[in-house]
Amino acid sequence: MHNFSFYSPTKIIFGQDTVSKLIPELGNAAISRVLLLTGGKSVYTSGLYDKVVGLLDQAGIKHETVSGVQPNPRLSKVREAVATAKGIQAQAILPIGGGSVFDSSKAVAASAATGHDIWDIVTRKRALTAALPIYGILTLSGTSSELNNTGVINNDETQEKFPFANDLLIPRVAVVDPALQYSVPVNQVCYSGFDALSHVLEAYFESLDTSEVILEHCEAYAKAIIRSLRALPGAKEDYAVRSELAFCSVYAHSGWASVGRAKRGDFSSHRIGHALGGIFDVPHGVTLGIVMPNWMQYVYDKGLSRDVFARFATHILGVKEAPDNDFALAGIKAFKDFVRSLGMPVSLREVGVKEADIPKLAENAARTLPFGCVISMDLENITGVLKQSF
Amino acid sequence: MHNFSFYSPTKIIFGQDTVSKLIPELGNAAISRVLLLTGGKSVYTSGLYDKVVGLLDQAGIKHETVSGVQPNPRLSKVREAVATAKGIQAQAILPIGGGSVFDSSKAVAASAATGHDIWDIVTRKRALTAALPIYGILTLSGTSSELNNTGVINNDETQEKFPFANDLLIPRVAVVDPALQYSVPVNQVCYSGFDALSHVLEAYFESLDTSEVILEHCEAYAKAIIRSLRALPGAKEDYAVRSELAFCSVYAHSGWASVGRAKRGDFSSHRIGHALGGIFDVPHGVTLGIVMPNWMQYVYDKGLSRDVFARFATHILGVKEAPDNDFALAGIKAFKDFVRSLGMPVSLREVGVKEADIPKLAENAARTLPFGCVISMDLENITGVLKQSF
Repeated sequence: MHNFSFYSPTKIIFGQDTVSKLIPELGNAAISRVLLLTGGKSVYTSGLYDKVVGLLDQAGIKHETVSGVQPNPRLSKVREAVATAKGIQAQAILPIGGGSVFDSSKAVAASAATGHDIWDIVTRKRALTAALPIYGILTLSGTSSELNNTGVINNDETQEKFPFANDLLIPRVAVVDPALQYSVPVNQVCYSGFDALSHVLEAYFESLDTSEVILEHCEAYAKAIIRSLRALPGAKEDYAVRSELAFCSVYAHSGWASVGRAKRGDFSSHRIGHALGGIFDVPHGVTLGIVMPNWMQYVYDKGLSRDVFARFATHILGVKEAPDNDFALAGIKAFKDFVRSLGMPVSLREVGVKEADIPKLAENAARTLPFGCVISMDLENITGVLKQSF
Repeated sequence: MHNFSFYSPTKIIFGQDTVSKLIPELGNAAISRVLLLTGGKSVYTSGLYDKVVGLLDQAGIKHETVSGVQPNPRLSKVREAVATAKGIQAQAILPIGGGSVFDSSKAVAASAATGHDIWDIVTRKRALTAALPIYGILTLSGTSSELNNTGVINNDETQEKFPFANDLLIPRVAVVDPALQYSVPVNQVCYSGFDALSHVLEAYFESLDTSEVILEHCEAYAKAIIRSLRALPGAKEDYAVRSELAFCSVYAHSGWASVGRAKRGDFSSHRIGHALGGIFDVPHGVTLGIVMPNWMQYVYDKGLSRDVFARFATHILGVKEAPDNDFALAGIKAFKDFVRSLGMPVSLREVGVKEADIPKLAENAARTLPFGCVISMDLENITGVLKQSF
């Protein structure tokens, strides 16, 4: 087992009818002014927003709201929210939404506390030395942004989608009520759940060079997410299915899946997917469904990681037979079939990308080099994965 | 899945040669005076103590040491350490040792910060409203005390062994270097590893009424600990074995094994075991090896939990065949055989307890009622488990 450090200080309040439990947490921290950050209309139509505002009013906590955070969250919206946060001297950010809203809240928390423009922080021109605390309510599981130190922001001027990370950005408290997610369209739940699956797999695919128990815990979580996603179309309001999916999603990118590994996961599929999301505004989960099986094929064709992919096939996907006993290849095929079975595309072509767009995509992804440990990525390898994905 | 909240803010620094990483953590928190707390002689003979003191001196951090914390940690030693901590105005407690040393450090942290006698806090006559932060180095894995909110203290005057718990007591940082544990005698490592196993099983045995993924993750960890304990006699300095055991032990009682359950585990075996440890000074792991399989038999004889014990048999112990297809009973037998195979006793008789001692043990355990959820315990049931254990 490789050395690691693990730090996940978020208090997770998980379960039905738990939203009201967030308010005493603010009180315990003597927070009296918060900025609420929301995404689409569903938090308003579902009554969730009114409920939270009512609870804050009752507790005497002042608040302002910035709404309209989009998937692939925009820099311009972050800047707007920072101005509002400064205006009310917010002591905390309270995201109500999915990964994009949580990611944006991290950007706002950092920029408002340091006084630096967030893009200067993301591009490391300025140091992230402080952040407002985040107390959030999750309405769509998938990114684990509710408890990790990471965010991703789209610069709408430059079409760059860059990640940023700092332990100061880890939310203090996150409420995860799976039933709040019933109102999210099934395809969005599916994309987001696929993102959670990909987080476990980015760690798992790194190599088998870790302790057996770590492989087995990743397998348990990956299997559970796959099971949930398969059941999802007939289980939109089935609490058992939705809670297992939400639970696994909390866990998937908390850092726990990648402990005891040399590199904490590969994440090439994520970086290449970010380029696709940045330029073509394809949902993050969809980018992963396209890139990840094709990254696997690219890796396989180089003769690498076949032991990992074979174990993935048998232990996670339940592949029982394989032509020529090649379980690695059968696993890649079964994974692609699984993505297709969810109604998700498995090629760039299907989301309107042209072959001529590949150099632009590759160049965009290459801006966040270095990444990748199964294959250390460069422009040529990124291009290879994109061609395979076409 | 049942509602839960999960909070585990300890930074775990895990791996070989990681002790020096603790010092910058103290520096980051502006801590300049610490109380070191140690157990037996091995931290001195191994050179670990000198190393830590050297690092503290180098960093300009003042320190005093209280040594001699025993297994089943004593109240009198805690009081001695509190006086020393107050004398130097310690800003943090730095345990170097196993679970008993960490447990004691929590008692010292609470008493020194509140000014209350620790037994008044343990018996809830005084509120635990503050605690000094704990930055520790683990030298024997098993209790998970390095990252949970719980301690156990023996009152040497009254022969009471009582647990206490508060989130203020969760260590800030814990260094877990499995190689530091090579110098601990194998039987102690085994007892302590068995304690870790029992933490997973206390959760697992509660019922199957939780999400499948939670059952599977508990199974992965329980299997790994069993595998490690079986390998231990020939693997004293085998890093793969020792690191997997240490890793699972961190996880086992962090709270993660019991999320999503109605009651967060049964823990009757622990409470009855504490009585045995309190009166007869039997090592904690040994008490569990005696009580837990006999608690299972007692539960089985009442016709309860047979589905859980059957799954335990097949999924964790790998039982393939069972007389009359009674896998629950076969599992209890296989578990007892496993305890025996570790060279551990499976009856009270073997540790010198007389049948006449049972009422005294039962009455002692009953002082911490209510406990138990598979069977809600009372004096009669406790006596029943003890008779079964005899």
